[in-house]
Amino acid sequence: LRVGYPEVIYCEGKTTEQVKRIIEFMLTKEKNIIATRANEEMYKAVKEICEIAHYNKLGRIITIRKEEEKYTKGYIAIVSAGTSDLPVVEEAYETAKILGNRVEKIIDVGVAGIHRLLAKLDIIRQAKVIIVVAGMEGALASVVGGLVDKPVIAVPTSVGYGANFGGLSSLLSMLNSCASGVSVVNIDNGFGAAYNASIINKL
Amino acid sequence: LRVGYPEVIYCEGKTTEQVKRIIEFMLTKEKNIIATRANEEMYKAVKEICEIAHYNKLGRIITIRKEEEKYTKGYIAIVSAGTSDLPVVEEAYETAKILGNRVEKIIDVGVAGIHRLLAKLDIIRQAKVIIVVAGMEGALASVVGGLVDKPVIAVPTSVGYGANFGGLSSLLSMLNSCASGVSVVNIDNGFGAAYNASIINKL
Amino acid sequence: LRVGYPEVIYCEGKTTEQVKRIIEFMLTKEKNIIATRANEEMYKAVKEICEIAHYNKLGRIITIRKEEEKYTKGYIAIVSAGTSDLPVVEEAYETAKILGNRVEKIIDVGVAGIHRLLAKLDIIRQAKVIIVVAGMEGALASVVGGLVDKPVIAVPTSVGYGANFGGLSSLLSMLNSCASGVSVVNIDNGFGAAYNASIINKL
Amino acid sequence: LRVGYPEVIYCEGKTTEQVKRIIEFMLTKEKNIIATRANEEMYKAVKEICEIAHYNKLGRIITIRKEEEKYTKGYIAIVSAGTSDLPVVEEAYETAKILGNRVEKIIDVGVAGIHRLLAKLDIIRQAKVIIVVAGMEGALASVVGGLVDKPVIAVPTSVGYGANFGGLSSLLSMLNSCASGVSVVNIDNGFGAAYNASIINKL
Amino acid sequence: LRVGYPEVIYCEGKTTEQVKRIIEFMLTKEKNIIATRANEEMYKAVKEICEIAHYNKLGRIITIRKEEEKYTKGYIAIVSAGTSDLPVVEEAYETAKILGNRVEKIIDVGVAGIHRLLAKLDIIRQAKVIIVVAGMEGALASVVGGLVDKPVIAVPTSVGYGANFGGLSSLLSMLNSCASGVSVVNIDNGFGAAYNASIINKL
Amino acid sequence: LRVGYPEVIYCEGKTTEQVKRIIEFMLTKEKNIIATRANEEMYKAVKEICEIAHYNKLGRIITIRKEEEKYTKGYIAIVSAGTSDLPVVEEAYETAKILGNRVEKIIDVGVAGIHRLLAKLDIIRQAKVIIVVAGMEGALASVVGGLVDKPVIAVPTSVGYGANFGGLSSLLSMLNSCASGVSVVNIDNGFGAAYNASIINKL
Amino acid sequence: LRVGYPEVIYCEGKTTEQVKRIIEFMLTKEKNIIATRANEEMYKAVKEICEIAHYNKLGRIITIRKEEEKYTKGYIAIVSAGTSDLPVVEEAYETAKILGNRVEKIIDVGVAGIHRLLAKLDIIRQAKVIIVVAGMEGALASVVGGLVDKPVIAVPTSVGYGANFGGLSSLLSMLNSCASGVSVVNIDNGFGAAYNASIINKL
Amino acid sequence: LRVGYPEVIYCEGKTTEQVKRIIEFMLTKEKNIIATRANEEMYKAVKEICEIAHYNKLGRIITIRKEEEKYTKGYIAIVSAGTSDLPVVEEAYETAKILGNRVEKIIDVGVAGIHRLLAKLDIIRQAKVIIVVAGMEGALASVVGGLVDKPVIAVPTSVGYGANFGGLSSLLSMLNSCASGVSVVNIDNGFGAAYNASIINKL
Ligand SMILES: Nc1ncnc2c1ncn2[C@@H]1O[C@H](COP(=O)(O)O)[C@@H](O)[C@H]1O
Ligand SMILES: Nc1ncnc2c1ncn2[C@@H]1O[C@H](COP(=O)(O)O)[C@@H](O)[C@H]1O
Ligand SMILES: Nc1ncnc2c1ncn2[C@@H]1O[C@H](COP(=O)(O)O)[C@@H](O)[C@H]1O
Ligand SMILES: Nc1ncnc2c1ncn2[C@@H]1O[C@H](COP(=O)(O)O)[C@@H](O)[C@H]1O
Ligand SMILES: [Mg+2]
Ligand SMILES: [Mg+2]
Ligand SMILES: [Mg+2]
Ligand SMILES: [Mg+2]
Ligand SMILES: [Mg+2]
Ligand SMILES: [Mg+2]
Ligand SMILES: [Mg+2]
Ligand SMILES: [Mg+2]
Repeated sequence: LRVGYPEVIYCEGKTTEQVKRIIEFMLTKEKNIIATRANEEMYKAVKEICEIAHYNKLGRIITIRKEEEKYTKGYIAIVSAGTSDLPVVEEAYETAKILGNRVEKIIDVGVAGIHRLLAKLDIIRQAKVIIVVAGMEGALASVVGGLVDKPVIAVPTSVGYGANFGGLSSLLSMLNSCASGVSVVNIDNGFGAAYNASIINKL
Repeated sequence: LRVGYPEVIYCEGKTTEQVKRIIEFMLTKEKNIIATRANEEMYKAVKEICEIAHYNKLGRIITIRKEEEKYTKGYIAIVSAGTSDLPVVEEAYETAKILGNRVEKIIDVGVAGIHRLLAKLDIIRQAKVIIVVAGMEGALASVVGGLVDKPVIAVPTSVGYGANFGGLSSLLSMLNSCASGVSVVNIDNGFGAAYNASIINKL
Repeated sequence: LRVGYPEVIYCEGKTTEQVKRIIEFMLTKEKNIIATRANEEMYKAVKEICEIAHYNKLGRIITIRKEEEKYTKGYIAIVSAGTSDLPVVEEAYETAKILGNRVEKIIDVGVAGIHRLLAKLDIIRQAKVIIVVAGMEGALASVVGGLVDKPVIAVPTSVGYGANFGGLSSLLSMLNSCASGVSVVNIDNGFGAAYNASIINKL
Repeated sequence: LRVGYPEVIYCEGKTTEQVKRIIEFMLTKEKNIIATRANEEMYKAVKEICEIAHYNKLGRIITIRKEEEKYTKGYIAIVSAGTSDLPVVEEAYETAKILGNRVEKIIDVGVAGIHRLLAKLDIIRQAKVIIVVAGMEGALASVVGGLVDKPVIAVPTSVGYGANFGGLSSLLSMLNSCASGVSVVNIDNGFGAAYNASIINKL
Repeated sequence: LRVGYPEVIYCEGKTTEQVKRIIEFMLTKEKNIIATRANEEMYKAVKEICEIAHYNKLGRIITIRKEEEKYTKGYIAIVSAGTSDLPVVEEAYETAKILGNRVEKIIDVGVAGIHRLLAKLDIIRQAKVIIVVAGMEGALASVVGGLVDKPVIAVPTSVGYGANFGGLSSLLSMLNSCASGVSVVNIDNGFGAAYNASIINKL
Repeated sequence: LRVGYPEVIYCEGKTTEQVKRIIEFMLTKEKNIIATRANEEMYKAVKEICEIAHYNKLGRIITIRKEEEKYTKGYIAIVSAGTSDLPVVEEAYETAKILGNRVEKIIDVGVAGIHRLLAKLDIIRQAKVIIVVAGMEGALASVVGGLVDKPVIAVPTSVGYGANFGGLSSLLSMLNSCASGVSVVNIDNGFGAAYNASIINKL
Repeated sequence: LRVGYPEVIYCEGKTTEQVKRIIEFMLTKEKNIIATRANEEMYKAVKEICEIAHYNKLGRIITIRKEEEKYTKGYIAIVSAGTSDLPVVEEAYETAKILGNRVEKIIDVGVAGIHRLLAKLDIIRQAKVIIVVAGMEGALASVVGGLVDKPVIAVPTSVGYGANFGGLSSLLSMLNSCASGVSVVNIDNGFGAAYNASIINKL
Repeated sequence: LRVGYPEVIYCEGKTTEQVKRIIEFMLTKEKNIIATRANEEMYKAVKEICEIAHYNKLGRIITIRKEEEKYTKGYIAIVSAGTSDLPVVEEAYETAKILGNRVEKIIDVGVAGIHRLLAKLDIIRQAKVIIVVAGMEGALASVVGGLVDKPVIAVPTSVGYGANFGGLSSLLSMLNSCASGVSVVNIDNGFGAAYNASIINKL
């Protein structure tokens, strides 16, 4: 169905051996490959059978480029609050890039310091679609949603503790956003947000 | 910020008197007006002060057109399973229309009868963006998501009983969709889905 | 223990007859009286036995002033997003006033329009303590908390639907605020927030 | 009560020593034995006292055949979406086999690629009873339920993350199935589903 | 797909007018009709257009027999604890009957008086499939499941209060049954249980 | 306040060093000592400073007898279903014994095999107070409660998986018991149940 | 089994007609009768067929005394915080009385005014068993539990709003009581608490 | 914005390397530093680059004093029940101290022994603001709140097991406090409570 789309493998709960064998099989096709939630051991095993495999450690994601992507003119903005959300930001970033999108990261703009966000407004507003990654109270999605007139894809993260309940607080917060134009994907699902944003960016 | 956007009022929890007064004020501007979750009494009160007010009873939504919308070339497809989800479908439909979008409704295609869905695949696939409205187990979003390569905005509905827990079952189902390209808005939020779809349809 | 504090009665779940009798008894003491969650029928019954009873209909609260309060020099700011949160705002307002506090209301400053909030920053920052009332995603508490260096008491409201789960979304959001200096009271508890703010304002 | 039924032991939370001793005792009877949720260490310990013990590693299940089962004429179909659900599939498979059932596995038919499922429809429809194993949004149970007129036993799995909440999303999804003829067992309970299916298959 | 199956309509959330019109249309086909969750007003409206409509008030279910069902040789036993669960029992009973099944009701056998249940054991054990309807702690499903070697379909009911949380207590109880051979349908879903039991009874 | 009661220490979340020091201090008084949730390392450390320390490994509980208890005439019955609940049974047993109670354990009587329970009815009924320990669906508390006219203290255990949610299923089940005379303590709280039973047994 | 125990009927969810007919049947036996959760209409209907029926309106409970109870020497203390919990207190009171117990009510002793509780300590401590009825945070059970050495049966009530979640806050609070000797019954279950206390009081 | 405030770093989920590098950068400014949720390895790494780093092991918190704080005249009282809550107490203590507050700890005053609390009432009442740290049923916040007329900041802790659900029981308990003047921060958030108390103490 989806010509030109990469092969995707979700590594969580698979053994290194399984990941290696699946990728070995995928390499027989002429497609790019994304392996999400991959640990370093998996990367090393993949590297053995594929020289060009690239690993984003923070984002726990392996990418293999069989064909060079052509970048879109419009870009995706990935906006987030702080260092704890970076693994999800990086998963989204790598996914968006290998899918052929120009991407801008704006990563130190939490709502507790609203002026830092306002200072980056231009670059955010000129994006064609915006991914907002936020944990704890997830307020960033509403604030950004109110400042732009582009689609906002919100990714709640499991960052936090106590009454965070594994990302529930930011998930509910984002689903109840008072700003129009915000839709939501699963907790920590940087891959899904980027995939979605890519479809929109290429419309 | 948002030139050309209509004024929007959410009527739930407001008195008929409040709704009337707010709309009276809005009428002084040259913008279209949407009033969601409005009951018939509210509609009658609004009709008194505005001849051209239109009421979609099933969708509990009042629309007032001060300026005629120009329709987009691409269209939004609204896909749903059965009669119980129709109020949310209609809320989305009216919203999408007044925002200037061509819309196609495909409303009798629940997953328990997959062939009815497959029979409508052409019209769904040719849409620029797709809204899926589904209650109970919300499986329709995943099935549609797997059949198209356009952005899918999923609206869980509160239709159901027992272990449905007010829409929780379809909400969680849609957030965990195994199909890429699906994002989710709040339970019963037909307005939000259409607003979002409209932004995307006009990119 | 608490000299000078008013008598307080919580009317929800009490009959009009019970409320009337309790207030009748309270009137024998030389103290101010607050009756929260009171409906109009209750107010009428109280009015019969007490000429000076005052009713804030939106805030569903009756106040009776036996002794005139002396107002504090510092003031409490009550900040909220929109019309749906007004009942809680008014409950907090009446409570704060009869407890002897100067109060400023700033009520149309939701996070989806951040510039309206920034325009009111001076009056918020000069308060001695700030109450933030917000439903849906409750993001306002974090944004305000990041802009001031005074204590912020956050009141989640039950305003919303679907994944709001009766105020749970804004409650969790506020408890997980990334801004320091924010503490939280029960959903819709405008009385408790004002009582708390009053203690702080009078320190 | 249940003549001809095997002895069953659930190993989770038991020590290797305990498992070994319980099976040692069971071996004194003339019955088949099933040990579910058994790790490899347990298997090795059992192997020492019972040469014919067989271990399905993926399904974490030990089976010991004292009497050869006679297979049924009708068969049980086990349908699932992807590799992550395989441990539950295998637990169900081994249980169904030792209980004397013919079994067909159809394991790569997730709802995001509905045509793969439709291609296998014949073999599914000819089964006497169908087990559907699915994690994430669990939509497969509804889709299969709508395509067959045989009893469907749905097994939600804990496969997923974030708003999956340990299998809650697919559990609720399956309980709210819009397809008639679907009943549900506990999350990850491949054993229970197969036991149930076996009773039905032998009616 | 399902030759010989009746038409089914779920009336909850539909208007009397809608129910009447849907049934009017169904009457043009040569099939039996079941309308669940129907109130008396709906029944009266249906009666006007269909003389032979029959109403089970306690079970809130309308049945219309266009063709006389032939009863099965084996029977379905419906087992329940007390009077509060009767509406669900009756919904299951009427559904099972019109689907052509012999049915035995055993309705006063709660676990707090185990001897009453044991006294009815023969009639329960001779059934081909058993439906257990129970609210509160739902223990009846496990006790019955341990006493029979036939498939047990458990229906949790919303009967109870407080920590019952709308049927959650008996739902979880039944899903965690320590007795093998028990599967579960949605809370209060007497229709679904009977439909399922009917498929099994006719295998 | 409580003359003759032992000193009690809850070891979970404490270091071996802390446990040792606290018990060292307790040994200076003339009282018996109970240390619950203690691991073997803790026991060894305690043994070094107290020869007479006794460890029940399964129950993870250390007891130290400075004064010999005199046993009550009436006894406490501890009833449970299977091997998985034994740790909680043993915690209750040791606690009840050192508090000076005669105790009878009846430990293989799960509801899925009701006749085993009925066979032990005499010894259960002659107890002065009964503790029921059960995980999964917790049905045993209701069944026992219906068979005796003595107070039943129900202890839900966290034994189970999936929709057990850490003991929630049996907790809710027991709180909703249809049998009168059943009260409930926290999940896995064998100590609390025995303490409570001891107070009642000594009345 | 239980000679001398009254007949009990739970009226919630039954029609006045059903209640009347059930009691009519019960009146043919020589036993006392308790009807809980009965509204005034039910009482009037019962009064028609039974002159001696007595109604406690606040406690929503009908009692019918066929044989005069003999009161115990020891008494049950019912302790609660304020007026909102009174319906549950009265349900417990009437139940305890007709079961033949002496009862003392201590009803204005919430933890926010600990000295009022301490002033009543003597009468609480001399009881043979204590029922604590409390809503909101349910702290009263722990405080009382720490002050007495008798069994405490805690009844959480659904009194409160917002994060009370229908009694969940006081239920969890009581289950986690740091005071030993506290066991818990279902939310608002005054009847169950009194039944339990009566068994203990008569040991 | 906040002159004189220290730099704060939350170490959970960061690597030792990251923590070290962030603090290295912070050391270039003339501000005090707080690192919460830091383990010993992190402390050692920080010690290498900063001689004056101080570690509170129990409170898992590193503090670095570049400028000596001047202490306030009024003090913060930190009240808690037992040894298990001490990590949160210590986090609050260190935070309050480095922010320049006088602090009094009152740490052995659980509600199950109310007299120990009453014995410490003077020192609690004379504080300007009070932090109450409590796990399990969290009743201490209500009891203290009822005894003082100063603001109470309640910190629920995750101490407990079973129906504690990771601190949910004390969180809900504190949010529903019947004592006025109590506000709540996130579970285990000793830092936030102290930060908040410090703002109030310095008003
Ligand atoms: N991080 C992720 N989160 C959610 N879904 C993912 C993620 N990575 C991959 N997927 C999806 O998982 C599928 C691959 O699953 P599998 O075949 O089990 O490896 C892909 O088609 C994606 O749609
Ligand atoms: N709206 C409110 N929300 C929470 N607590 C309240 C409210 N109004 C009054 N209260 C508290 O309820 C107490 C009175 O309760 P009652 O005696 O039942 O009327 C007062 O002392 C207040 O502390
Ligand atoms: N994987 C499983 N899931 C649920 N129940 C199981 C499983 N395996 C075994 N059982 C049940 O557990 C019982 C044995 O438990 P035990 O005596 O603790 O080993 C058997 O009778 C089965 O009914
Ligand atoms: N009481 C019930 N509970 C659950 N599902 C039902 C019930 N009654 C009918 N249904 C299902 O609902 C479908 C009809 O829905 P509708 O077309 O909305 O009336 C039928 O095909 C049944 O599968
Ligand atoms: Mg926007
Ligand atoms: Mg798609
Ligand atoms: Mg601040
Ligand atoms: Mg089917
Ligand atoms: Mg069975
Ligand atoms: Mg009993
Ligand atoms: Mg006690
Ligand atoms: Mg106070």
